[in-house]
Amino acid sequence: MEINLISDTVTRPTPGMLEAMMNAKVGDDVFKNDPTVNALEAKVAEYFGMEAALFFPSGTMTNQTAIKIHTQPGDQLICDKYAHIYNYEGGGVSFNSGVSCKLVDGNRGMMTAEQVEASINPPDFYHSPLTTLVCIENTTNKGGGACWDFTELQKIGKVCEDHNLKYHLDGARLWNALVKKGEDPKDYGTLFDTISVCLSKGMGCPVGSVLVGSKEHIDKALRIRKVFGGGMRQSGFLAAAGIYAMDHHIERLAEDHQKAEEIGEALVTLDFIKKVEPIETNIIIFEIDEIKMSSATFLEQLSQNQVSIIGMGQGKLRIVTHLDYTDEMHQHFLNILTTIG
Amino acid sequence: MEINLISDTVTRPTPGMLEAMMNAKVGDDVFKNDPTVNALEAKVAEYFGMEAALFFPSGTMTNQTAIKIHTQPGDQLICDKYAHIYNYEGGGVSFNSGVSCKLVDGNRGMMTAEQVEASINPPDFYHSPLTTLVCIENTTNKGGGACWDFTELQKIGKVCEDHNLKYHLDGARLWNALVKKGEDPKDYGTLFDTISVCLSKGMGCPVGSVLVGSKEHIDKALRIRKVFGGGMRQSGFLAAAGIYAMDHHIERLAEDHQKAEEIGEALVTLDFIKKVEPIETNIIIFEIDEIKMSSATFLEQLSQNQVSIIGMGQGKLRIVTHLDYTDEMHQHFLNILTTIG
Amino acid sequence: MEINLISDTVTRPTPGMLEAMMNAKVGDDVFKNDPTVNALEAKVAEYFGMEAALFFPSGTMTNQTAIKIHTQPGDQLICDKYAHIYNYEGGGVSFNSGVSCKLVDGNRGMMTAEQVEASINPPDFYHSPLTTLVCIENTTNKGGGACWDFTELQKIGKVCEDHNLKYHLDGARLWNALVKKGEDPKDYGTLFDTISVCLSKGMGCPVGSVLVGSKEHIDKALRIRKVFGGGMRQSGFLAAAGIYAMDHHIERLAEDHQKAEEIGEALVTLDFIKKVEPIETNIIIFEIDEIKMSSATFLEQLSQNQVSIIGMGQGKLRIVTHLDYTDEMHQHFLNILTTIG
Amino acid sequence: MEINLISDTVTRPTPGMLEAMMNAKVGDDVFKNDPTVNALEAKVAEYFGMEAALFFPSGTMTNQTAIKIHTQPGDQLICDKYAHIYNYEGGGVSFNSGVSCKLVDGNRGMMTAEQVEASINPPDFYHSPLTTLVCIENTTNKGGGACWDFTELQKIGKVCEDHNLKYHLDGARLWNALVKKGEDPKDYGTLFDTISVCLSKGMGCPVGSVLVGSKEHIDKALRIRKVFGGGMRQSGFLAAAGIYAMDHHIERLAEDHQKAEEIGEALVTLDFIKKVEPIETNIIIFEIDEIKMSSATFLEQLSQNQVSIIGMGQGKLRIVTHLDYTDEMHQHFLNILTTIG
Repeated sequence: MEINLISDTVTRPTPGMLEAMMNAKVGDDVFKNDPTVNALEAKVAEYFGMEAALFFPSGTMTNQTAIKIHTQPGDQLICDKYAHIYNYEGGGVSFNSGVSCKLVDGNRGMMTAEQVEASINPPDFYHSPLTTLVCIENTTNKGGGACWDFTELQKIGKVCEDHNLKYHLDGARLWNALVKKGEDPKDYGTLFDTISVCLSKGMGCPVGSVLVGSKEHIDKALRIRKVFGGGMRQSGFLAAAGIYAMDHHIERLAEDHQKAEEIGEALVTLDFIKKVEPIETNIIIFEIDEIKMSSATFLEQLSQNQVSIIGMGQGKLRIVTHLDYTDEMHQHFLNILTTIG
Repeated sequence: MEINLISDTVTRPTPGMLEAMMNAKVGDDVFKNDPTVNALEAKVAEYFGMEAALFFPSGTMTNQTAIKIHTQPGDQLICDKYAHIYNYEGGGVSFNSGVSCKLVDGNRGMMTAEQVEASINPPDFYHSPLTTLVCIENTTNKGGGACWDFTELQKIGKVCEDHNLKYHLDGARLWNALVKKGEDPKDYGTLFDTISVCLSKGMGCPVGSVLVGSKEHIDKALRIRKVFGGGMRQSGFLAAAGIYAMDHHIERLAEDHQKAEEIGEALVTLDFIKKVEPIETNIIIFEIDEIKMSSATFLEQLSQNQVSIIGMGQGKLRIVTHLDYTDEMHQHFLNILTTIG
Repeated sequence: MEINLISDTVTRPTPGMLEAMMNAKVGDDVFKNDPTVNALEAKVAEYFGMEAALFFPSGTMTNQTAIKIHTQPGDQLICDKYAHIYNYEGGGVSFNSGVSCKLVDGNRGMMTAEQVEASINPPDFYHSPLTTLVCIENTTNKGGGACWDFTELQKIGKVCEDHNLKYHLDGARLWNALVKKGEDPKDYGTLFDTISVCLSKGMGCPVGSVLVGSKEHIDKALRIRKVFGGGMRQSGFLAAAGIYAMDHHIERLAEDHQKAEEIGEALVTLDFIKKVEPIETNIIIFEIDEIKMSSATFLEQLSQNQVSIIGMGQGKLRIVTHLDYTDEMHQHFLNILTTIG
Repeated sequence: MEINLISDTVTRPTPGMLEAMMNAKVGDDVFKNDPTVNALEAKVAEYFGMEAALFFPSGTMTNQTAIKIHTQPGDQLICDKYAHIYNYEGGGVSFNSGVSCKLVDGNRGMMTAEQVEASINPPDFYHSPLTTLVCIENTTNKGGGACWDFTELQKIGKVCEDHNLKYHLDGARLWNALVKKGEDPKDYGTLFDTISVCLSKGMGCPVGSVLVGSKEHIDKALRIRKVFGGGMRQSGFLAAAGIYAMDHHIERLAEDHQKAEEIGEALVTLDFIKKVEPIETNIIIFEIDEIKMSSATFLEQLSQNQVSIIGMGQGKLRIVTHLDYTDEMHQHFLNILTTIG
């Protein structure tokens, strides 16, 4: 049995999702004539209680578009040092928007409002870049799927308001946080200027992300999407998967979280595991005691059991649970873990 | 019967294509694990006899990526004044690459080698931008689907070689030219540094374009695609349509060309039509004699007959034939034309 | 006697100007503590009746800064095909601002309001760049020092107002137009959003240009100047020359114009001169009849007489009169012309 | 007696320097016809034993140009968290070059070779920006004028060589380090790809910086300087000051260092001073014990004595000695210090 725990992006559509895709009514979305894309955009906007939404081929493009519409070249944005936009979007913040990042030394990818406020450059001191945007990631990827405290997000929102900064949420895995914390998506819609969500991670869709915001922001986003080359034609096939996922795959994220917790408990019992970071959602980050067993040996032994996971550098390893990681695989994997060493 | 002649981008997958999509084996293409995407890329590279290929969500992104990998900010590229990259890619040449366009006053979107050579700025005169790239579009969209003379393309290639310029082909509708002229795609592969082709136009796929070139160029393109946010996950569903189209939809483009020619012949007989531009492939551009009938009236009468076409500004109208424009629709449309006036 | 007619940028400070420079009170302008720079900026702002001004090391930087503060990347500006900003600023419009140019086929560098209006892209058609700025050059350099009709400038201003476009004047040689036409600089200040003027051309200063506009625009310009690296320290030495020039060198531009006219009259009498373009200020552009005498021979014969002028490509030659071109040189040069052939 | 210790940029030319400026032979440097600029460039190139040099209006522009010629948009450079290019150049790294900074947590602005190596992104991992450049600042401004150990600089050079990275030195105050350490400038010329030095700081010139490197790099720099608008006309007046400074003001920097050391010794004796950072050259950074005396009070008391210094944020204050800070002022200031409290 092959078990792929590299990322929640590796999922393939379920039969139900595939059927929804193949029966999708499609049109040319460049002319805004694809009814399924239009329906998905309306559904996501409504979900967050925001005015408008736009479908994109990737989460990187939703984030990069949001950053672009909120900034001018030369500006600076504030984000945690673990932020996906800084670490894993190919340098796009600077390439696409000419913007630099002020990195905050947060906790598992999460900053405090106080740290954010201290990172704002004085607006009149023109030697430093002008701070115009704060970006949050929830859950945090490099922070091990950690969920923000909503009160802190509100405090940061207040800082943004006081200093005339825009406020963007990279919600690639926001669904996981909403389910974990039992939060109301509309509270997020009220707080942020723009939110991006991914359909291709925990939600199990093959392709697609959505940016939500005010009508004015989404109108600007349409131009930027065009410039990046993100306008697609009969993309309703992909949007249909998104609609299906919103109807069927949100609540079940709790199962991924449960499995992740159980994997964490199993890891803790292994004597060559030095540390397992707190597990809140579907990501497990842990460290090997390299004296007792090298990471390479551990990965090799997993691989012999047809299990794939990835290293994150600096001795850290990562496991991600997802829709295609079945109960059966889970039991099998927990068994495998007991045999390693 | 609804007849949409606005563009060849409006097609919906045929049953055969849809079946191919539904049965596609997919994986996470961001990790290069999608077998169908890999197969499509190999197939397109082989078709042009080039080293490598990369799948993209749009033709705009293939062109923008090619321009980026061939230039540095501040450079200038040479293209015809009708070029899609200048007119219809949202200002992306300057936005994404910081590059300006030297527009050549060509014929139906096609320049001569002499015009290209005369447009090169002296490399040592640093007040002018450095010319580093020539971009060709074949067939020409705004030029009415015109096909270049391959000998002229070779002469321009010689100019590029002599002046150390890169040479990119926007082949969104190159398939149409190849079929029309009976040309060998490998001759194009030999001549150009990079070629972009679209699967979502005459080929009838829902989404997707492919950039082909040397391994070195495609490696660079992968980084740029990431930065634009063009990396997708299980995009094999879309790639499967592309493979199907290459196997089944190339030769049949001749039918679209035949129908376009017949429409042209019908238009010429109408006394309120001032001019029909030469028709070589699947695009018909023509002008109304506004004294005899206004464009608005003409469009309105077509609309009453459930026929959609679009204006191009400056009194020009455009009709595009395609896979979803059936023989039956064709006869019906030719009949409708005789009733207008 | 060496006679340099290549450009009006070649002048060296007069004794009076040099004395003003050396007696300048200076401070650190990066801290806005240079009293002479501050005085020059106030003087130029007052001259045009505008709120604020900023000193720059070059005219290219004033123009590039103005374009940047009026646009977002991806936007398009409208200018004449002869515009300095498109032809001679190193591709800076695209490099610095990510902006493309819509070139208008004007007359000697001058467009009509009608041409400008026809060049605006439809704001909702997001496939085309968003038009946000119109740039004018007065006098036109490549257009042979031609002066705009102020009524046409006003009409273009109306087009900008109607379509919500910004309006920038590249006034590198605006002083020449003002003197020639007897116009009021405050009328220009009222009409344009920003004006850039050069001190290093007809005005005879060694270095420097000034951008004028509203306080808000100049505040933004300060940030852009910093980013380009245009902030200088004790630049009062240069600003002192500017103040001196405004007090002593504006009215005398009429002498340069007079000499240019006389040179034009002399050229017309030479049988190997095919055409002399209309002369309005201090620039003379003319064509040699290459059958009767080659440009190379003509330049060579001038060179033997210690006279330097430059070619502009395409068989055109250019002569520019200026502060360092004395009456004596003028008589000498007119004599030389009669001996050539 | 007014004593300005804000920065070494506040100096005004000495009578000797002013005389050199006044007698400078000048020409139009845009045509490369200014003999004094040419002489300065040759002199600086020779000083470092490098092929070529180029004069600029500011140190920001030399750095920004160097970064641009060594990178492509999307790339990442490595520098210390205190680096001037990241903190005080208006966000120019991202604005001008589309490049991001990987900030290293060094010691007083200085990194180790090991830290640099650990900061390089894996070249094949295209999700992260491609690392292509390392930037060093010597002496460090924000690090209190600290001088690098040349052996460490060589080790970093080895890392650059091994990983195919370019190596740029922001030497705004390199003169101070050379004098302090008794180093040979040619050793720096051998080690780095490009070096920028400022003439307007310790050297006492009113305006100007110089970039040195290979002929190929400086040719590219000329294009970039043009695009930024850094090309000036009769800039020989400014260059003359630079030549004078190189002949007369290098060795005397030792006096500034001596005075800085004596100020440091005086500060240490004051009971409300919490900490004085190590003093190596002409910059003194120190902290007030805010319980005993607030920074505001301290600055206020100095101000009443006509002494200006500046705060650096986070409770730190900075004093900079320079050419215009005379022996007399020095004694006076040391006396003032004893009276405060």
